[in-house]
Amino acid sequence: MSQRPAVILLSGGLDSATALAIAHNEGYRLHALTIAYGQRHSIEIEAARKVAAQIGVARHRVMELDLRAFGGSALTADMEVPQDRSLDEMNTGIPITYVPARNTIFLSLALAWAEVLESFDIFVGVNFLDYSGYPDCRPEFVEAFESLANLATKAGVEGTGRFRIHAPLIWSSKVEIIRQGVALGVDYSLTHSCYQPASDGAACGRCDSCLLRAQGFADAGVSDPTRYVP
Amino acid sequence: MSQRPAVILLSGGLDSATALAIAHNEGYRLHALTIAYGQRHSIEIEAARKVAAQIGVARHRVMELDLRAFGGSALTADMEVPQDRSLDEMNTGIPITYVPARNTIFLSLALAWAEVLESFDIFVGVNFLDYSGYPDCRPEFVEAFESLANLATKAGVEGTGRFRIHAPLIWSSKVEIIRQGVALGVDYSLTHSCYQPASDGAACGRCDSCLLRAQGFADAGVSDPTRYVP
Repeated sequence: MSQRPAVILLSGGLDSATALAIAHNEGYRLHALTIAYGQRHSIEIEAARKVAAQIGVARHRVMELDLRAFGGSALTADMEVPQDRSLDEMNTGIPITYVPARNTIFLSLALAWAEVLESFDIFVGVNFLDYSGYPDCRPEFVEAFESLANLATKAGVEGTGRFRIHAPLIWSSKVEIIRQGVALGVDYSLTHSCYQPASDGAACGRCDSCLLRAQGFADAGVSDPTRYVP
Repeated sequence: MSQRPAVILLSGGLDSATALAIAHNEGYRLHALTIAYGQRHSIEIEAARKVAAQIGVARHRVMELDLRAFGGSALTADMEVPQDRSLDEMNTGIPITYVPARNTIFLSLALAWAEVLESFDIFVGVNFLDYSGYPDCRPEFVEAFESLANLATKAGVEGTGRFRIHAPLIWSSKVEIIRQGVALGVDYSLTHSCYQPASDGAACGRCDSCLLRAQGFADAGVSDPTRYVP
């Protein structure tokens, strides 16, 4: 009951599931926030629900925010998701799966909930090494958001606390993330990473996200629990 | 056609209508963004539509985002709106009409749209003098968001442009805002400021927002076009 509350952004993917397990391991009372932003598939939301239930959260909130209104990304508009790219290709420029200002929006929503809960700890599973092309996965972005959070809120004026944006995976490789998650008991079979799954939820195995994930399991020597399309 | 695009946060209130008119006067192609965040009344949204039509915008987008899920404010939860307060009372502490992280969320959404439009100019009608209690109406908040915007986005990585958050009213008194708006042709009868209007849209005349607005018209020597409850 005396646990400090934390808000965790939970997408249902591998990274955010691991971030949730880390927050759990650090003893926070978990408030998981999933944004249904118009992903092409409700599969991610379902994965988030399963992960939240497996790890055990005080509250899981799914919030609707249709970013398809803006478009501008292969994840929110009718654009083709790249397939079969090499790591070098993935790390060249900003991929079209980048969703404009997504992490800024998601962290803002997490901040609103945290402020109402009187929580000062927000966890986000952003990762710099695998997503170096995404501007809002960079350490300097996370630091800038933390500064903003402490100006944007009551606590920033009243001095009652200081917000911290925890990005525990930001410097981790996929292998390190998977090993850490396995050690913390994350059931990765519940998570979903694919950008273009089949209607039954099976992963394509060919988008950047699938390829990074599969390579991570292989390199970690962990059996890949992902269900792929035949 | 060669006008630079700008995104303007438009609530339907007096300040944001004036900010829209200023952006128009500066020659931007106007993209007005209204967030339907669970305001108790659709009256504000209606006001925003009328203002957008009067001033003339290229596009007006109304986005649904139900911040009542979080609560924590008299504007998003079942709390009483303060009435008949003096200016001194209004300026003591943070009023319960403060909505946690609202301007951070709204600016994030404006940033997303701007990034898709390849616009680098975002206008917001925040005002420090009348809302000194709101943490996210302070100049240091606006500056911090501008810094964040330039780290959070493609342009921040690629160096293709620099976002600017325009808060043209931040240092203005209500009188100055009204005089500027009148000079620019804003029809304030279309705007809505009241926190707790009657079901027919009439303003209460007693909440902080009504009192500041009425005083502004009186001090500006401008006839108050607001329709109040009898």
